[in-house]
Amino acid sequence: MNSETKKNLDFVQAVLKEAEMYAHASRLLTYDQETICPEKGMEEQGEITAFLQNQVFKLQKQPKFEEAMLYIYEHRDELEEFDRVCAEQLYRDYAKTRNITTEKQLEFSRIMNKAFVDWSAARKASDFSMFADSLKKVRDANIEMIKLRDPKDMEDLNGKKNAPSLDPDNKYYVMGQLIGDYERGITIEELDECFEHCKERLVPLLKKIMSSKKKIRTDFMHKEVTEEQQRRMTDYLISVIGYDLTRGAYSTSEHPFTDWMGKNDIRITTHYYPTDFAASMYSIIHEGGHALFEMLQPEENYDHFIEGGKTLGMHESVSRMYENRLGRSKSFIKLIYPKTCEIFPEAMEGVSEEEFYEAINVVEPSLIRTESDEFTYTFHIIIRYEIEKEIISGDIDIADIPRRWREKYEEYLGVSPKTDREGVLQDVHWASGFGYFPTYSMGNMYNAMYYNRMKNEIDIDKAVESGDFATINNWMKENVFKKADRLSPAEWIKDITGRDFTADDFLDYLEEKYSGLYEL
Amino acid sequence: MNSETKKNLDFVQAVLKEAEMYAHASRLLTYDQETICPEKGMEEQGEITAFLQNQVFKLQKQPKFEEAMLYIYEHRDELEEFDRVCAEQLYRDYAKTRNITTEKQLEFSRIMNKAFVDWSAARKASDFSMFADSLKKVRDANIEMIKLRDPKDMEDLNGKKNAPSLDPDNKYYVMGQLIGDYERGITIEELDECFEHCKERLVPLLKKIMSSKKKIRTDFMHKEVTEEQQRRMTDYLISVIGYDLTRGAYSTSEHPFTDWMGKNDIRITTHYYPTDFAASMYSIIHEGGHALFEMLQPEENYDHFIEGGKTLGMHESVSRMYENRLGRSKSFIKLIYPKTCEIFPEAMEGVSEEEFYEAINVVEPSLIRTESDEFTYTFHIIIRYEIEKEIISGDIDIADIPRRWREKYEEYLGVSPKTDREGVLQDVHWASGFGYFPTYSMGNMYNAMYYNRMKNEIDIDKAVESGDFATINNWMKENVFKKADRLSPAEWIKDITGRDFTADDFLDYLEEKYSGLYEL
Repeated sequence: MNSETKKNLDFVQAVLKEAEMYAHASRLLTYDQETICPEKGMEEQGEITAFLQNQVFKLQKQPKFEEAMLYIYEHRDELEEFDRVCAEQLYRDYAKTRNITTEKQLEFSRIMNKAFVDWSAARKASDFSMFADSLKKVRDANIEMIKLRDPKDMEDLNGKKNAPSLDPDNKYYVMGQLIGDYERGITIEELDECFEHCKERLVPLLKKIMSSKKKIRTDFMHKEVTEEQQRRMTDYLISVIGYDLTRGAYSTSEHPFTDWMGKNDIRITTHYYPTDFAASMYSIIHEGGHALFEMLQPEENYDHFIEGGKTLGMHESVSRMYENRLGRSKSFIKLIYPKTCEIFPEAMEGVSEEEFYEAINVVEPSLIRTESDEFTYTFHIIIRYEIEKEIISGDIDIADIPRRWREKYEEYLGVSPKTDREGVLQDVHWASGFGYFPTYSMGNMYNAMYYNRMKNEIDIDKAVESGDFATINNWMKENVFKKADRLSPAEWIKDITGRDFTADDFLDYLEEKYSGLYEL
Repeated sequence: MNSETKKNLDFVQAVLKEAEMYAHASRLLTYDQETICPEKGMEEQGEITAFLQNQVFKLQKQPKFEEAMLYIYEHRDELEEFDRVCAEQLYRDYAKTRNITTEKQLEFSRIMNKAFVDWSAARKASDFSMFADSLKKVRDANIEMIKLRDPKDMEDLNGKKNAPSLDPDNKYYVMGQLIGDYERGITIEELDECFEHCKERLVPLLKKIMSSKKKIRTDFMHKEVTEEQQRRMTDYLISVIGYDLTRGAYSTSEHPFTDWMGKNDIRITTHYYPTDFAASMYSIIHEGGHALFEMLQPEENYDHFIEGGKTLGMHESVSRMYENRLGRSKSFIKLIYPKTCEIFPEAMEGVSEEEFYEAINVVEPSLIRTESDEFTYTFHIIIRYEIEKEIISGDIDIADIPRRWREKYEEYLGVSPKTDREGVLQDVHWASGFGYFPTYSMGNMYNAMYYNRMKNEIDIDKAVESGDFATINNWMKENVFKKADRLSPAEWIKDITGRDFTADDFLDYLEEKYSGLYEL
């Protein structure tokens, strides 16, 4: 490395270190808002979060920083791998935001923070109209943000592809860019094709399941249990999967999530429903999976400021690996069945291990995404994705969203929300933007692919059944986690599996599992 | 106001507004550290807190800010009352820190944050030696901070008094200044005299109580209860005293506390012990009292940045008013007895209202300050105060503290801790400095004085008995809370009661109450 590169790299890292102070604080404020901040304190706290996020942005907008960052990006061949990845990440952020002033960024940030507050209140009151105005502002801010970008920059960043949606005049250009922000390199066309393929295989299968004669009893799943019992179950489950409580903590929130504060502080949340003990069980395993991904990443990532390269699809692949592939498997049920009976004796009385397994996997078209079964889950995503496209392309007005929501749920799942709370207000995501949801489905598809490699190398069922998550986690660490920050999703999944992305492993898995369960 | 004054005032307020963003965030990080932050994430979070506190300090150290602040301070006669108070507060802070560089402040801040982390770990391990090194640094930093001050400044700030300890060469000069930081205007001599007077009256009284034939049953107070039951009790009590959950939240922490985040966000904490249900009851009433003080302050204080003028003694007077004077009174027990029986049926079975009242007020020399009864409480404070004086004056080494602690507990209360955890490590306070404890006792003395005025104006027992805390809170708001930010403690207590500060109201109260209870 020449001394000029070294000097610029050192300067960049010093600024990143300072920016990380503000960013860490702002993450903590957001976490607090979602877990404990009182209703009337929300707005002020949102303002402070926006202020801190703006300090981060300002630091990276300093001409001196931009120069140094561009210098190391141009000389990235001289850098060691970790620093090179960091330079590339910085350049991507720079290219996306180069026309956004610090004032404009603060404005966006405040819109999102206000939208969160409004969403919380609207959800509580189950009244979409209380959120509509903020949602419109979020939509407009998202569109404005994308339109401020130079399309040429985006082409350079993502590689040339011949998709019509990459043309700025295309109706779906903005939506395509938003999707690419979350899942780098993917186009609207690829996603459309993927979901069409899912529908082709899943719609007929769902019909068969719904008309199957197989009866699965679920009555006991809705017996009343206390919060204290559910807390004991949470403690048990996080210890089973290997979540380290000296480097994390759990609490409760309306919408469960995982928050990375720092390398030794990765928080998760859950929620406790008195008549649905499985809900907190599977949300804690899901969030625990996200947390393991962060807890088990290579030490070097922190030191080189590259801990932010994972896409949401990668992240969801891991959380859903633990929640569904592992967590809803026969071997996992075998492992946790005795403890479940011990902690929830009233609910589990007279319930066999097989009945518990079946209940955990019952297919039931329903209204709430986060509570839905593994099979119908994909439809929840497709519905959101299709509505998002309409919102961003201008095909529907904000006021029409609840109506579209009901229509789509009726169409795909044959159910229809009676209230906004169990409909369009159930998810927090649109308070900060659009294009996030598809990553949940991509996650299912990624993990189905790497599960198929993993099973050739270790005896997954044996490890799970015996509670040996060290073996599982270690395989994940070496094969799935290690390079996630350094590769694009397409490179990453190919690196793990040797194959290009496909939804078929996931669809095959569903078909096999549910054909068995429903005796089709 | 001349236009130059206006210009300077506006500038000062704009800077204060920005500083408040950082300060709010740093308070939130500290709160998080004490409630949920995982063990291994503590140190990094402490660093960030120190960084944010340093940003506040830097903003106030800008020459432009100092000039503007000095200008409005010199022209304070032109300002309206609220702004004048703000100018005076700012000048006091300035005078105390004018020789402290931003680097030095960061160093102090980091020492305190590290000390908190070490205290937490040491307390957990019950091993004073793990905290000793940090404690020494805190002591040295406190001494250094005071020695950096100009004694002339301090004389100007506090008014001339002829106390020997105000002479910088006096052995107790540093300790005296530290005390004055918490309780403005009070000298070591006044405090010594006050505590000697307390000892004169309380030591013989304690002897009488201990040899009284009166038997108070307390067996039921240690029956096992669940956390869920205690949470229900917490919910009930905060609703009784009028703590507003839309402007606050409660959670748990090792050491219960109240944190003011913003005008609509005042948090309290408690802790749940399985075999001591009264502990969480009285800690929540205590912290709830602190919170009411903040929740019911005049709106104008926020707008004029004068919400920081309350001394700790004032604050403790309020929390202890609710916890002890009101909370441990016969009328309060009458109010809460039925609900206590309902929530803790196993513990309260066969316990009469009178027995419950007696148990809540039993005098039992013990080791833990926060769990101690109202009567022996003062001895816990005297012990800490006397040891603090020795620490700061250099009469004892850090390593000797646990020994001194045991000796003093033996001397005053006839009990001696077997472990550091139930001895010197029980309180967090020394991790940030010295001189805080005496304010707890001052608080008892203040509230005894204003209780004696209050009872002439409203029927306290009737209000409490009927759960009419609106009447109580309103009286407190008008008479106790309103001017607290604007006056020194001596001015404030005189403003409320028309009398100069005295410990006798408190001592009379104790004598009367406990002579009755123990049939002396």
